[in-house]
Amino acid sequence: MEQTIKCTINAGRLWRHIEELGRIGRNADGSITRFPFTKEDLAAQTLISRYMEEAGLSVETDAAGNLIGRWTDPGCKNNPPVLTGSHYDTVLNGGRFDGTLGVLGAIEAVQTMKEAGIRPAYPICVIGFKDEEGNRFGYGMIGSKSICGIVSEEGLDSEDQDGVSLRQAMTAYGLQPEQVQTCRIAPVKAMLELHIEQGKVLEKHQKQIGIVDGIAGLVRYRIVIHGESGHAGATPMTERKDPVVAMSKWILKVTQLAKEKPFCVATVGSIQTFPGTCNIIADRVEFTLDLRSIHEQDICEIMQTMETENEWLEQTEGVCVSQHLEQRLSPVLCDMKLKEQLQKICETGEYSYMYLMSGAGHDSMNFKDVCPLGMIFVPSEGGYSHRKEEFTGKADCAAGAQVLMEVLIQQSCT
Amino acid sequence: MEQTIKCTINAGRLWRHIEELGRIGRNADGSITRFPFTKEDLAAQTLISRYMEEAGLSVETDAAGNLIGRWTDPGCKNNPPVLTGSHYDTVLNGGRFDGTLGVLGAIEAVQTMKEAGIRPAYPICVIGFKDEEGNRFGYGMIGSKSICGIVSEEGLDSEDQDGVSLRQAMTAYGLQPEQVQTCRIAPVKAMLELHIEQGKVLEKHQKQIGIVDGIAGLVRYRIVIHGESGHAGATPMTERKDPVVAMSKWILKVTQLAKEKPFCVATVGSIQTFPGTCNIIADRVEFTLDLRSIHEQDICEIMQTMETENEWLEQTEGVCVSQHLEQRLSPVLCDMKLKEQLQKICETGEYSYMYLMSGAGHDSMNFKDVCPLGMIFVPSEGGYSHRKEEFTGKADCAAGAQVLMEVLIQQSCT
Repeated sequence: MEQTIKCTINAGRLWRHIEELGRIGRNADGSITRFPFTKEDLAAQTLISRYMEEAGLSVETDAAGNLIGRWTDPGCKNNPPVLTGSHYDTVLNGGRFDGTLGVLGAIEAVQTMKEAGIRPAYPICVIGFKDEEGNRFGYGMIGSKSICGIVSEEGLDSEDQDGVSLRQAMTAYGLQPEQVQTCRIAPVKAMLELHIEQGKVLEKHQKQIGIVDGIAGLVRYRIVIHGESGHAGATPMTERKDPVVAMSKWILKVTQLAKEKPFCVATVGSIQTFPGTCNIIADRVEFTLDLRSIHEQDICEIMQTMETENEWLEQTEGVCVSQHLEQRLSPVLCDMKLKEQLQKICETGEYSYMYLMSGAGHDSMNFKDVCPLGMIFVPSEGGYSHRKEEFTGKADCAAGAQVLMEVLIQQSCT
Repeated sequence: MEQTIKCTINAGRLWRHIEELGRIGRNADGSITRFPFTKEDLAAQTLISRYMEEAGLSVETDAAGNLIGRWTDPGCKNNPPVLTGSHYDTVLNGGRFDGTLGVLGAIEAVQTMKEAGIRPAYPICVIGFKDEEGNRFGYGMIGSKSICGIVSEEGLDSEDQDGVSLRQAMTAYGLQPEQVQTCRIAPVKAMLELHIEQGKVLEKHQKQIGIVDGIAGLVRYRIVIHGESGHAGATPMTERKDPVVAMSKWILKVTQLAKEKPFCVATVGSIQTFPGTCNIIADRVEFTLDLRSIHEQDICEIMQTMETENEWLEQTEGVCVSQHLEQRLSPVLCDMKLKEQLQKICETGEYSYMYLMSGAGHDSMNFKDVCPLGMIFVPSEGGYSHRKEEFTGKADCAAGAQVLMEVLIQQSCT
């Protein structure tokens, strides 16, 4: 057994695949726009299918458009499959590594295993998930949700700016949205996803591998503070109900609360003032809060404290604060045993590693009630993601694929 | 002498004039848009000229378009004139009282004096100043600046959104921008302006007359804070250079500093975040600061303290703060003797009164190096101004005109 896992993935082949796939949807500035249900999607699907076939996988697509490369050895019998993969769509003007590394790294891992003569006892499915980013319809992760059996009818009815529904777009692309329940794979032995970090924690700590503790849950709020408009010159400071001042206190409070919790982040990314001119005290501000943690309790506690803060602001600043919940996602914890296996693999292979939280959502989070979940992060240079500067070096990509392969071997062969 | 000043202005006539002029430029919603150099301007000018003539004034316009009603009694000889008036243009969707009350109230005061047989020893000029608001060209107060001899060539070259210059618009309206220096009136005995408060200090203190201590100076800055963009989920709180957090501290600091000074106000009315989406830490915020005080030293001290604050924010938040001065106006103090006269008039006439600062700029501020300056405020209901809700009751308008008349009598007859 120790002998069979001494194989090494082909770093050059993986890098060539990344470069080749990175040409599909490439814009003049070097960024990539590869939206689902487009000709770029089809071109990428065709190329990835070829890689899967070259790796010796039997390729199929399901009703939701997931691309599945299956390796079923006769010895697998009826054992549940080990799943691995990620998505191959991008955001508008995105990068070459987000998602695609998890698809191409998984193909590379399986191809190396095959070339090394490994014979798995559990089938392995490499999956290129459909529409993770949800750019056009907002819903997102239609592929992984289909495989996990958690697609909602409302989700399929989500509409783009032109009033076209996800359902209609899927049908027009030749898929069968009315049959997404047939996509379900169950039981599943484990789900493993390799992904770029999209932050710079690994880079800062000079670690090659991130073992993901969990994927943060999140709440998104639109906060509205009503105050009282007035002439900037003719309204004494003591007579003001300035929503901008109240907002400043609000932002500092939520920032402080997030700092006090481990693995918790709070972001106010968008602010609008009304009427928004220099010489009029605003009568209203609206801003967004994006609050994430791997501990759901921490999110609840912070929002509870902010309700007390709101009352205090209403009393002291004379404003009226309202919070509108726009999105809520529960945190997902990675499997303890898989994390231990990953740690051992890193130690044996002499990869520097650390544990960290995923602040971003990923396809694998949909598997939380399906099977044990493991995620591997590799460094993002400068933390850049969702833009043309997104970059992970060849050696880091290879290290990630190697660790993925070794955990796949452990999961599929024993 | 005591006998002659026992005359009372005609409150009904003043109110009729306010109502009649308020129909010129009236919008469907009841607000008023009366921009300079338009047919509404011409219609207002024609109507006001008629009122001036009915009051027995000799009417003329100057090269800048100021409407001047002159009362020169043979006994005035070569004495310098007492000036009074205000503007009759409005902002977009403005109200009926801002500016116009000062023009119509002055006409009413002079008409009452004439009717009472008063014979001034100093000429009185009632002036309807051109383009105080500066809506279209930004420059503003072309009329009062011309009379004070402080129009700049750059001011005349100010352009509107379509690239038309103030100079061109004046010429097209039949004025002589190249001859604005001929508008100058000097020497001047005193300048007196009646105006609505545009705030709610008088209303709050239940006072009928405001004796203006001074017109606040102001600085307007555009503040830019550069931070570092990042994924809202993938960037730990300790790794952030979030310009929104730095801005919040900045706003609270400048607010606190303004509160610590008397007659000082600070307003952040417009904020923009870039890129301005909920799930991305902003890389930059831009916002406005409007800071006013009647004590120039206080403005300087606050901006100096903010420079120290900027350094502290740069060190502690990792951001880069820059301040761009966009406008600076020095404060103007009202004449001590005129204020004493106004106080005595209020006490004798049993008008409730208080001293207060004008946070807004006014035509009379241009007279600071020309002559002693006095300003009378009357209450604005709810503090509303520059909108259709702008309102000052008939009795308050009459009280303002009466106080103006009595100080005009004291200034012109002795």
